[in-house]
Amino acid sequence: MRFYTVLRGQKEEVLFSPDGGQNAYAIRELGLPYEDMDRLIEGLTEEERRSLPERAKGAVPVEWESVRLLAPIVRPRQDLICLGINYRDHASEAGSFSKEAFGGERPYTIYFSKRVSRANGSGEPVPSYEGYCDSLDYEAELACVLGRSVKGISEAEAESAVFGYTIVNDITARNIQTRHKQWYLGKSLDGFTPMGPCIVTPDELGDPKDLAISSRVNGEIRQQSNTKYMIQTVAGAIAELSQAMTLEAGTIIAMGTPAGVGMGMQPPCFLKKGDEVVCEIEKIGTLRSPVE
Amino acid sequence: MRFYTVLRGQKEEVLFSPDGGQNAYAIRELGLPYEDMDRLIEGLTEEERRSLPERAKGAVPVEWESVRLLAPIVRPRQDLICLGINYRDHASEAGSFSKEAFGGERPYTIYFSKRVSRANGSGEPVPSYEGYCDSLDYEAELACVLGRSVKGISEAEAESAVFGYTIVNDITARNIQTRHKQWYLGKSLDGFTPMGPCIVTPDELGDPKDLAISSRVNGEIRQQSNTKYMIQTVAGAIAELSQAMTLEAGTIIAMGTPAGVGMGMQPPCFLKKGDEVVCEIEKIGTLRSPVE
Repeated sequence: MRFYTVLRGQKEEVLFSPDGGQNAYAIRELGLPYEDMDRLIEGLTEEERRSLPERAKGAVPVEWESVRLLAPIVRPRQDLICLGINYRDHASEAGSFSKEAFGGERPYTIYFSKRVSRANGSGEPVPSYEGYCDSLDYEAELACVLGRSVKGISEAEAESAVFGYTIVNDITARNIQTRHKQWYLGKSLDGFTPMGPCIVTPDELGDPKDLAISSRVNGEIRQQSNTKYMIQTVAGAIAELSQAMTLEAGTIIAMGTPAGVGMGMQPPCFLKKGDEVVCEIEKIGTLRSPVE
Repeated sequence: MRFYTVLRGQKEEVLFSPDGGQNAYAIRELGLPYEDMDRLIEGLTEEERRSLPERAKGAVPVEWESVRLLAPIVRPRQDLICLGINYRDHASEAGSFSKEAFGGERPYTIYFSKRVSRANGSGEPVPSYEGYCDSLDYEAELACVLGRSVKGISEAEAESAVFGYTIVNDITARNIQTRHKQWYLGKSLDGFTPMGPCIVTPDELGDPKDLAISSRVNGEIRQQSNTKYMIQTVAGAIAELSQAMTLEAGTIIAMGTPAGVGMGMQPPCFLKKGDEVVCEIEKIGTLRSPVE
């Protein structure tokens, strides 16, 4: 099953779809009280979850043309946790762009965070910040959303805490990311977190370690890989992060990006006003971001 | 004026003190509806703020012995933003501990973040995570709390957005901080953010660039400096961070630490179970953290 957040009239609404997005139903019209995705993730019981397809039978689906897609979690309660350099091929392209920022040995996973006061939905623009950012870049990433609070969970158990998966485009100002040493600021500008189009639950998604992942800029393929090339897995990251840090329900972990970003091209080729980036992950969908 | 958060019976309560903490009054008993510090920061009008000393006259102060001090903001709505290597003398001691992690040129301020699901109040223990962390360290820091949402604010105007100041002890697991390259995880373990004892408003604090700052471990002075040695100022940090990133009301920015941390000693001397760290900043107070 999959869950969307949309703007319907003036109101945010969570939708449920049993059939890959073909038909989607407003959660509240199915008799469940959840006003937004965070409340649904926190509150939805296993019994309610299982009752959703049955509740949808005979209900009236939302007309897709009458709503506007938002990020599945519009205002994440905490910063996104992100993995850096988590695909082997991306490690070498990043190192060739800046040895100081991205080179060297990495026996341990890189974790950093990304502030998101408001995530962009598919179709919502990414600002180019001309004059401040001279090297705007895209990063297609698989992201998991936790369904319950965990601490000290084992790698074997970790996937059981995942509510679902979505796509994050980890937009980055390379000049700001590298000059401040720690990557936080260059990753955290307003509008730098396109997310969507929906959250797909694990039963529908299958193995998160075997999904085609790609990005295109103005229709040209830039990234084309598979999540099986991730160095640290979803389960491994949840286990390592939660060893001594509580991960609350609603935590979003973005799993890093494969090769093919703008800084990896020869010469580097960054995003500019008027471009459009489309990130795609198998079994989740596409996330479209015009640059303005 | 200063504001505290305390546990009174089973309930969290915000207190106001007009006289440096001598007498403190429950905000709700002064006729204001704010249930916690974030709501107060967001909601308090200038008129209400000015009315506080008057409202306190004749009111019954809280008995300090009957309440337990909590962090002024127990559950920050977003991760803390922190400045790294923001005192000149700390730059050299950090570089001598790990050239790879802390050395090199830094023409730009280092910003990183610290996840805090729950901040510790003064007196609340810091876990030692023996077996996982082998190099637990303290960092006394001045922190500012924003009173309103800002974006693109000038350095000249930036201090006007500050609601008040507090002390943060930026507890760090040095081995985890350095091995994952980005500092996030080694800074974000549960219990790594002692904060307090209160928030002091700018009118009471005066110039944030001229405050004695120190820390002691088991009574022995370790850090002893003044905020005038900060490289980036409070106003400068707010202006730079908010250039393209909205800083919401309630945002906490920790301004970095002076020399004298455990990793800077010869040989390095880290915290262990049974130790007690006390951070102190002039005009704010002391923040006590037993290690357990």
